[in-house]
Amino acid sequence: MNTILKVDAEGQGLVEVTHKVRAAVAATGVRDGLVTVFIRHTSASLLIQENADPAVRRDLAHWLNRLVPEGDPLYTHNEEGPDDMPAHIKGMLTAVSLSIPLMDGQLALGTWQGIWLWEHRHRGGVREIIVNVLGSAAG
Amino acid sequence: MNTILKVDAEGQGLVEVTHKVRAAVAATGVRDGLVTVFIRHTSASLLIQENADPAVRRDLAHWLNRLVPEGDPLYTHNEEGPDDMPAHIKGMLTAVSLSIPLMDGQLALGTWQGIWLWEHRHRGGVREIIVNVLGSAAG
Amino acid sequence: MNTILKVDAEGQGLVEVTHKVRAAVAATGVRDGLVTVFIRHTSASLLIQENADPAVRRDLAHWLNRLVPEGDPLYTHNEEGPDDMPAHIKGMLTAVSLSIPLMDGQLALGTWQGIWLWEHRHRGGVREIIVNVLGSAAG
Repeated sequence: MNTILKVDAEGQGLVEVTHKVRAAVAATGVRDGLVTVFIRHTSASLLIQENADPAVRRDLAHWLNRLVPEGDPLYTHNEEGPDDMPAHIKGMLTAVSLSIPLMDGQLALGTWQGIWLWEHRHRGGVREIIVNVLGSAAG
Repeated sequence: MNTILKVDAEGQGLVEVTHKVRAAVAATGVRDGLVTVFIRHTSASLLIQENADPAVRRDLAHWLNRLVPEGDPLYTHNEEGPDDMPAHIKGMLTAVSLSIPLMDGQLALGTWQGIWLWEHRHRGGVREIIVNVLGSAAG
Repeated sequence: MNTILKVDAEGQGLVEVTHKVRAAVAATGVRDGLVTVFIRHTSASLLIQENADPAVRRDLAHWLNRLVPEGDPLYTHNEEGPDDMPAHIKGMLTAVSLSIPLMDGQLALGTWQGIWLWEHRHRGGVREIIVNVLGSAAG
């Protein structure tokens, strides 16, 4: 019921993972229940947001970068680079886990919703998310 | 185990849905488990907050409106009106899914907690939330 | 499947609860499934964040205190003290529920992730969190 997905996040930004979550769910055979996505990191996070106009996601990222800039003299944790403490704050303000109902074999996302991994570091890497599926195959 | 609820959100603001969630849970007959509420939109969101003094909710809304004002020159996604991009940002900062334990047939909310749908657009409409219930009837 | 934990929060700040959640999960005997942590309060919240350098948590708290200061003339709800309305806003921006996959008897947290109760009032007290465990003992 738990599938570990590895997501290649090449740098700061949103990477859509909806299709990967869908595939992990389909592989379980569960038709009705609950899907939970969990990210195992503190400087990357999860987001369900608009999957249509890419300008929405650009604006979300610009807005968050302005709210949580690098180089803020408030930070004392600077050893891991100027983008590390902002990454933790951005993680705090967004999601580490998201739960989505599963109905008749389909994620019950709204028409305009996609699932995104948000890499907050400049230098990305392979990030791990876990897809947990609870429910019944019979529906 | 999944119930779709339609909520009439007449305009920007918080609409209490605690009673609707309770009714959907009661209809399932499940006594012990987990209730997850999910909203299928990106410009409305969910919140569990104070259900007593309405001034708390007014202050929450005023504070969020000040943090995320309309007309910010940062926005490039403006085609859907001046309240659309702020709505997406407010959605990002609050919740798309919330999970509440179910104990002996009751949502295990604290004394002062209510569940709210937060409409972030001026012109509301019918919003869909899904109530997912996992658990056992026997307890 | 639901365990109520009482956490003594002596004052404003982050209190690690990872070990308490682990113990509650272990007591259920469930090996594979989903663990949900829920807080029954509106002026304290939950956070999964860095468990290594304490400077990260200090910076998170300082940053949030600066974003949501006491004495903001916007607040109209002041009857419960100058730290009450900021506490509600901080609760709104962080988590009331968190779900963590359970794999082979272990919380599937990343290496650097701990679970924290965040007391937002100066004068803490005993806070209640509920640990919900869904899944199977057999794995």
